[in-house]
Amino acid sequence: MPLDPKRTVAELKELRALTGDENGAWRVAWTDTWLKAREWYRGKLAELPVEVHQDAAGNIWATLAGESEKALLIGGHLDSVPGGGWLDGCLNVLAGLEVLRRIAEQYDGRPPVTVRLVDWADEEGARFGRSLMGSSAFSGTLEPEAEKDRTDKDGTRLEDALRRCGVEMDRMLEAQQEQKNAAAYLELHIEQGPVLLDIDLPLGAVLGTFGVERHAIRFFGQAAHSGSTPMDKRKDAFLAAAKMAPEIYAITDRNGGVCTLGSCVTRPGIVTSVVAECDLTLDQRHLDADALARMLFEAKKASQRFSREGGLPEPEWSTIWRIEPILFHPDLIEFCDQAIREVVGTSHRLPSGPLHDAAEVARAGIPTVMMFVQSLHGISHNKIEDTKEEHLELSVQALDRLADKTIDWIRQQS
Amino acid sequence: MPLDPKRTVAELKELRALTGDENGAWRVAWTDTWLKAREWYRGKLAELPVEVHQDAAGNIWATLAGESEKALLIGGHLDSVPGGGWLDGCLNVLAGLEVLRRIAEQYDGRPPVTVRLVDWADEEGARFGRSLMGSSAFSGTLEPEAEKDRTDKDGTRLEDALRRCGVEMDRMLEAQQEQKNAAAYLELHIEQGPVLLDIDLPLGAVLGTFGVERHAIRFFGQAAHSGSTPMDKRKDAFLAAAKMAPEIYAITDRNGGVCTLGSCVTRPGIVTSVVAECDLTLDQRHLDADALARMLFEAKKASQRFSREGGLPEPEWSTIWRIEPILFHPDLIEFCDQAIREVVGTSHRLPSGPLHDAAEVARAGIPTVMMFVQSLHGISHNKIEDTKEEHLELSVQALDRLADKTIDWIRQQS
Repeated sequence: MPLDPKRTVAELKELRALTGDENGAWRVAWTDTWLKAREWYRGKLAELPVEVHQDAAGNIWATLAGESEKALLIGGHLDSVPGGGWLDGCLNVLAGLEVLRRIAEQYDGRPPVTVRLVDWADEEGARFGRSLMGSSAFSGTLEPEAEKDRTDKDGTRLEDALRRCGVEMDRMLEAQQEQKNAAAYLELHIEQGPVLLDIDLPLGAVLGTFGVERHAIRFFGQAAHSGSTPMDKRKDAFLAAAKMAPEIYAITDRNGGVCTLGSCVTRPGIVTSVVAECDLTLDQRHLDADALARMLFEAKKASQRFSREGGLPEPEWSTIWRIEPILFHPDLIEFCDQAIREVVGTSHRLPSGPLHDAAEVARAGIPTVMMFVQSLHGISHNKIEDTKEEHLELSVQALDRLADKTIDWIRQQS
Repeated sequence: MPLDPKRTVAELKELRALTGDENGAWRVAWTDTWLKAREWYRGKLAELPVEVHQDAAGNIWATLAGESEKALLIGGHLDSVPGGGWLDGCLNVLAGLEVLRRIAEQYDGRPPVTVRLVDWADEEGARFGRSLMGSSAFSGTLEPEAEKDRTDKDGTRLEDALRRCGVEMDRMLEAQQEQKNAAAYLELHIEQGPVLLDIDLPLGAVLGTFGVERHAIRFFGQAAHSGSTPMDKRKDAFLAAAKMAPEIYAITDRNGGVCTLGSCVTRPGIVTSVVAECDLTLDQRHLDADALARMLFEAKKASQRFSREGGLPEPEWSTIWRIEPILFHPDLIEFCDQAIREVVGTSHRLPSGPLHDAAEVARAGIPTVMMFVQSLHGISHNKIEDTKEEHLELSVQALDRLADKTIDWIRQQS
């Protein structure tokens, strides 16, 4: 079977028909629709000379044994958010499947290095709120004990939902065994942002995933009557908080990266009172750890300055979540760039704002790279998520070339 | 009975003990506690040579007939918000009572002009959300048909609550009959703001009540992933809205008056998304109608400019409520100033941010003025509302002098 990118597009449509409707994809991890998608996928694997098993964390591995035990890993995730896009996650799995078919045929079932395709379990965390579940068990960063008691909106416990799918949480970390002999990891993904769309390129090489600083900020003012309180007597929590909005744009102008104030809550929040308390959420992301730390420092300083200017006490900061930047492997980034240039003429390097399973694999110390394909509308996690078929086909070709380059690289290291 | 300001303070405390507790005053209009306060007040009136009746809107009038039918009105309100301050409203009624006593004695029950003390019904609108109820029936601006179906939080209808207190809504506007022969109206009130406190003066002459422009503003951005959307690709509704906060301070710097952004609501309002929609409430107040109109115009222009800067469509404005500025009578303001200077040496002229029954009386075309007494903490509608006893006593003396000057003025006009 020579590489047939059109088959990948056809299979994506087949999966969409099987597990989606007019409101989008419904392959939420640990649900029947997800299991149906995986069953369909196992049917495809059955036509190949591969060993297939589910690991202790629910990840499905298809292994094409090679001359060397050193393994090239290619991965994605079949699970989606509810009403999600038709490509998010599963493009990687099905493009990887096509590459696996090509390699299996070219080397008559025995390539120079082992090639393994992984379908990660629960990348999205859509049902229980814990994303990168399967890949973080693989990398060892998951703490199953701390997650067990999560429940979905119907009150079902995470532990029970996983057991139903053959996963015992106490044993999930045994999935780390799958790291053995892993020499490189490749992941193709839709961009989920507008960068490639804006520069009108189909494909890009991903430098790494942003580190994230996610904080809640509370400003303390004083309630006062909107009619009887002169402007210079006010302690206006909204004024101090609002000044943060242009400030985060200034911070990214100086440092790069992205910053978002996604929520603003005012109390008492009535038309006739100066705002007594104002809560903001801040999300800062950068590929460079020092720059990320500087962004956070500057935002804290600014919040203090704006409070002081308004006669307010120091605002209160509390951490919601944070993760360090994860950089991909320079050799693999270079191969990714080359592969893209060979297929479409021009490449572009860009960071990934969202996290991906690739970040967990990289955290495990395995050389990793991702390739992005353009998203129409620059949007994801939405039924309108889409990518031109022509670009999907190019992405399968480029992933295939990247796989070849990486196999050579692994072989040279052996 | 010569004027005895200490008696007013004693009576205020008596009323507090009767109708309040450690959480403040509970004389909410149309409730038993309010009726109890009014019964107590009628007991005080019974000792005076006055005719007492409740008008069609529930206002209680005590009339000391004079040589002339031309009448000086003095008024306040016994009703309070739930857990309200001990002085708000009732200071006026009890100070007026003391002035009435003094006049009754001095002229042996027959002053040169008629003097009438009114206890307005439901100034606060605390239970049904319609403030200035009794005084707007008096002035004729109330539309009883439009208010009838209001309910309190327990579902009781306004109409039924009023009927229980002897008020038929269909007949409320007959209270306009009380305007007959009214020649002037005086109202003493706690300031409810910090102006007199800050300049350390006990009393001030009020120029009028602010006009109010109250609007909701909706900014339209676009939801986008906080990690994958570059800063220059964002349509951030919070950014445009937030720029309004410093802007309203600039607007009042240029125009005077006050502006408040009391509520900010963000949608989707999650940490990982750029804000797609942001709602603000704006409350603008000014004593000068032209300046108020200019403030509104400038705020609208600014909201359009900030939207344009952020690549957003025009924001949507909707009116919540508006009222024109109401100016008090220049002669009475002058008398008020004189009375204050005679009692405490120095006066100060200031506008009223909050509305008062006096605004409705002035709208009826009756020459009106208010006198403010300093509020500690600059606060009201709260159990901690307070005024120094010494200032309360001075306020009774100044009101008494103002009444005398106004009686002379009315007499000269006859």
